[in-house]
Amino acid sequence: MDVQRVTVLGSGSWGTAFAKVLADAGRDVTMWARRREIAAEIRDSRGNTGYLPGVRLPENLTATEDAAEALDGADAVVLAVPSQSLRENLTRWRELLPAGAILVSLAKGVELGTLKRMSEVIAEISGAPEHQIVVVSGPNLAREIAREQPGAAVLACSDHERAMAIQRATSNAYFRPYTNTDVVGCELAGACKNVIALSCGMAAGMGFGANTMATLITRGLAEMARLGAKLGADAQTFAGLAGVGDLVATCSSPLSRNRTFGERLGRGETVEQAQQAAGGQVAEGVMSCSSIRELAQTTGVDMPITDAMHRVCHESLDPRAAGAELLGRQNKHEWS
Amino acid sequence: MDVQRVTVLGSGSWGTAFAKVLADAGRDVTMWARRREIAAEIRDSRGNTGYLPGVRLPENLTATEDAAEALDGADAVVLAVPSQSLRENLTRWRELLPAGAILVSLAKGVELGTLKRMSEVIAEISGAPEHQIVVVSGPNLAREIAREQPGAAVLACSDHERAMAIQRATSNAYFRPYTNTDVVGCELAGACKNVIALSCGMAAGMGFGANTMATLITRGLAEMARLGAKLGADAQTFAGLAGVGDLVATCSSPLSRNRTFGERLGRGETVEQAQQAAGGQVAEGVMSCSSIRELAQTTGVDMPITDAMHRVCHESLDPRAAGAELLGRQNKHEWS
Repeated sequence: MDVQRVTVLGSGSWGTAFAKVLADAGRDVTMWARRREIAAEIRDSRGNTGYLPGVRLPENLTATEDAAEALDGADAVVLAVPSQSLRENLTRWRELLPAGAILVSLAKGVELGTLKRMSEVIAEISGAPEHQIVVVSGPNLAREIAREQPGAAVLACSDHERAMAIQRATSNAYFRPYTNTDVVGCELAGACKNVIALSCGMAAGMGFGANTMATLITRGLAEMARLGAKLGADAQTFAGLAGVGDLVATCSSPLSRNRTFGERLGRGETVEQAQQAAGGQVAEGVMSCSSIRELAQTTGVDMPITDAMHRVCHESLDPRAAGAELLGRQNKHEWS
Repeated sequence: MDVQRVTVLGSGSWGTAFAKVLADAGRDVTMWARRREIAAEIRDSRGNTGYLPGVRLPENLTATEDAAEALDGADAVVLAVPSQSLRENLTRWRELLPAGAILVSLAKGVELGTLKRMSEVIAEISGAPEHQIVVVSGPNLAREIAREQPGAAVLACSDHERAMAIQRATSNAYFRPYTNTDVVGCELAGACKNVIALSCGMAAGMGFGANTMATLITRGLAEMARLGAKLGADAQTFAGLAGVGDLVATCSSPLSRNRTFGERLGRGETVEQAQQAAGGQVAEGVMSCSSIRELAQTTGVDMPITDAMHRVCHESLDPRAAGAELLGRQNKHEWS
């Protein structure tokens, strides 16, 4: 199986950085951008300054605002749009997807309402079988990868051959992809970490340091692994790059949108104020905390941090009260 | 089992912060300090400004430079001296330890030469049975705990009753201890994390960001868990506060000595220069990387990061060459 021509649908920071990874691994890459001026800048000036300032894109990467043109003849199609708008976007592109192309998902989240993981949404809308969909996860802050800092990722697919095809198409001097067959675990970890990053940001905003952050990360990891176990994920996934790795990168970097959003809440801003400061965008974790909480309730899993974040974001719980509540749980054995 | 009177042997930052935790949980605490002026400052001015500037110590905590006086009538004795000097110190105190007192270890490391864990050294020198020794681990940056930031810890002992006695003696409004019976796992994780923190510092010193740090943490966790599995530890311990928790706190905080030491190496300083900058002290990870590497070789466990750190610290390997070597390993499945 050979993947030479790749289309990346979406031109945000992660989509652009991933397109660069593919191009630097020798693939022919075409990006689709909704806005004509972004497509033109990528094509003509080798840059996407709005999302990745200071990064020069390689010559074997081009861009267009015409989705049909972008998708023509693709061996693989990378879906790089926000999780809550993936359904709507993909519905529009459905007829243009080349038959048999590997569909690669960069989106991390659980869909509000349906409670579906992103690969489930992709399978439903595209009609592609599950084994044709590869999920990308891991500690992947777009700006660092775009600056060619050494990093690793996980490529999850029930079909190991397709995962290896994408592995070959993305391996380069600074990007080291590992394959994995646990799609459920990788996707749940990727969605849950945004919620935990929100909580870490909130703690930082209240003035707490590394111990508190490390405790939230550890207990957050425990609660996402509990959900995963219930939904058929492999426990080991949570100890790996898609679990601990992604969680640590997102929670500790000032480049993380979810962490930054949480910091504002921790300093006393409302969700509306934080949203305004983020240019009108709500962080993914603000939406995912509700869908993941509902998933946890439906399956009978205890997720105290996610629950607290939902109540802070959507039921006006004070962040300090949330912290005191999490700390005040009864003395116990670590795993009881 | 009731622990009311507690002696803390050692007056560095973690020993002093832990003494404060005990006192704030209502225990009568006596610290022993080697230097008379530190004992006097703690006793008379309620402070230990050399190690914990700006922290006021509670009234039910006193100090002395006389070990016999400090140990008289103790229900529990906390050993808070550096791991590589624990044997020598404990040999001097051996005759003074009250029979039956719970021995609590704060030291994290593997002894050079013998390759023993700290609780093994304590059992050997004190003659106390293993079930009388409690190991403290977790995300515990001393300065943050001393400032009463919310944090959690793990108390490991093969005897759950004694672990619970220390749990009661340390639970307070800001410190949340969990019990655990996996002493081997907690001690190995505590020793290994210093080595990984050194590597994270080194990466930061070379200008790398959160992705690289998160990748080192994840792969470091995997290699310490492999060692633990070989030596009888419980895999779950590495996913918990003594594993991920301690690792993340130590690797991400600028307060961590091991991380800071590694940063200097990453910026091109020699071990000797970094040692001089650290007031003559070598970071624990610089010694532990050698003893843990030997333990790994003896037991046939692959620990590439620890091995690279040993070669950087003791065989003049260039940090950049170490990084390239770690990244250049062959493409593979995440868990193969």
